[in-house]
Amino acid sequence: MLDCAIIGGGPAGLTAGLYATRGGLKDVVMFEKGMPGGQITQSSEIENYPGFYQHGKTGMDFMDTWQEQCFAFGLKHRMEEVAAVRREGEHFVLDIPGKESISAKTVIMCTGSTPKRAGVKGENEFFGKGVSTCATCDGFFYRNKEVAVLGGGDTALEEAYYLSNICSKVYVIHRRDTFRAAPSTVDRVQRKENIELITNATVEEIVGDKTGVTGIDIRDAAGNISRLEVPGIFVFVGHNVNNSVLKDSAGNFICDINEQGQVIVDLNMHTSIEGLYAAGDMRINAPKQVVCAAGDGATAALQVISYIQEQA
Amino acid sequence: MLDCAIIGGGPAGLTAGLYATRGGLKDVVMFEKGMPGGQITQSSEIENYPGFYQHGKTGMDFMDTWQEQCFAFGLKHRMEEVAAVRREGEHFVLDIPGKESISAKTVIMCTGSTPKRAGVKGENEFFGKGVSTCATCDGFFYRNKEVAVLGGGDTALEEAYYLSNICSKVYVIHRRDTFRAAPSTVDRVQRKENIELITNATVEEIVGDKTGVTGIDIRDAAGNISRLEVPGIFVFVGHNVNNSVLKDSAGNFICDINEQGQVIVDLNMHTSIEGLYAAGDMRINAPKQVVCAAGDGATAALQVISYIQEQA
Repeated sequence: MLDCAIIGGGPAGLTAGLYATRGGLKDVVMFEKGMPGGQITQSSEIENYPGFYQHGKTGMDFMDTWQEQCFAFGLKHRMEEVAAVRREGEHFVLDIPGKESISAKTVIMCTGSTPKRAGVKGENEFFGKGVSTCATCDGFFYRNKEVAVLGGGDTALEEAYYLSNICSKVYVIHRRDTFRAAPSTVDRVQRKENIELITNATVEEIVGDKTGVTGIDIRDAAGNISRLEVPGIFVFVGHNVNNSVLKDSAGNFICDINEQGQVIVDLNMHTSIEGLYAAGDMRINAPKQVVCAAGDGATAALQVISYIQEQA
Repeated sequence: MLDCAIIGGGPAGLTAGLYATRGGLKDVVMFEKGMPGGQITQSSEIENYPGFYQHGKTGMDFMDTWQEQCFAFGLKHRMEEVAAVRREGEHFVLDIPGKESISAKTVIMCTGSTPKRAGVKGENEFFGKGVSTCATCDGFFYRNKEVAVLGGGDTALEEAYYLSNICSKVYVIHRRDTFRAAPSTVDRVQRKENIELITNATVEEIVGDKTGVTGIDIRDAAGNISRLEVPGIFVFVGHNVNNSVLKDSAGNFICDINEQGQVIVDLNMHTSIEGLYAAGDMRINAPKQVVCAAGDGATAALQVISYIQEQA
């Protein structure tokens, strides 16, 4: 019986593991099928995690510094995918395909959310090299430069506005001529002098060279293609919350989630189920930043320690 | 008129400044009378902030790495004490003794809380060298060693239990023979085999040498003094929340606080007043960890940016 099972190995999961083991819990396992580190390992540069500020260092370099530390206090890593987490009496059971199930007194869910990609030619090739899904993370790298935004929902327009305070110009490319975003948001974006809305248009291809993105080819309603020379394109076409582990065999979630599929938590990262916690990008109101996910992981682990103490 | 005033220069305030300026806000000022860095600068070692794991580095070294980064994007620092924050119409006014008042569209409160000291001889001399007020932070440095805990409230006993899972033995020194803590907590602590309760006793002096604490002199009810040889003592006699800035001239708080004086916030660090945010150790449910305070600061700053965008 594990004291704590941590599902997911990004910043939230690693920090939860550090705090749980350093706090004296003996059997703490982090389940992460791939290499630990999470989404940030795909970034070409990070400069907004306090205490890490070295030009030219990638997200992979950044996460390297976490590994020794987070595993130094006894955290174990199992490179396995957890298919489902079930409540069984006073504890939890983790189903692992092809393996024996594992019991745990507590579970911290840290599987994050995955930004959707638009499916445009060149998008994957230049991801992290001019293609981004996070304005907060990467906007500053395009200070006083022109960028494009792909999308027409609330998030796309809000992020376009955020970028317009940093970049010299923001082109918003949207396939329709109306926006799904809130009218007040649309109005605000239309009034901003350095935002240009390109509607009834699609991105045909993201082009670039060894240095990264150099432009995008845009197809208008008549089928004409023109090139927009920008060094950056931000894709905002939604997120998939990685919450399938929390579904029972009937397809129902074992804890409360909101309409977007995010896990509902309080300030202590408690879900609606006792002993089950959620941390990082999969929870409601997640700022989707490494430092915030790490803070969540620490918070959840300290709650796990208290919870286990109370059962003693 | 500032876009954002940040009150307090610890991890929450510095991170809020980094995110607010990197997110494109122009006039962001952090008010911190002393050197930025906060409580952690008093620590002799830190090993639980993810990404910073270098033996022998102090809290001061650790915060050094933050300075260049957090000020790199335009954050300004004023070495002044803010006496009061007032809401005036659509914005806030900051009163600074002997100076002109300053207006700000938004305010992020990051003044933290201060652990009380017991007032024992040797306590200040050895603070950070064997005397600690944080089990989560420093407990691990005493793994498999004996430590003493001073205090008899809920926090003292819960932290003693936390320490008992890491340390070989925990002595709890309490001046009364009954405990103010919840009966279930007292019971749990009494049943833990490596916790010894020393009641009707006070700490006469914390003694040590150049390496730090070596023991404590304990006075029993009869007035006899005996020495307990321990390398560490944890003092849990309460916290003062640094919330006086939020009091109006009549002594009433301008936003909702709880019975302990902590500012009530939601997951977005919103207080009960629009445009006013609180981050770090002064808020409810604060885990009082650097990484959590930093996450709060980032969260609050991103909310400030959204709030200012919405007013545009």
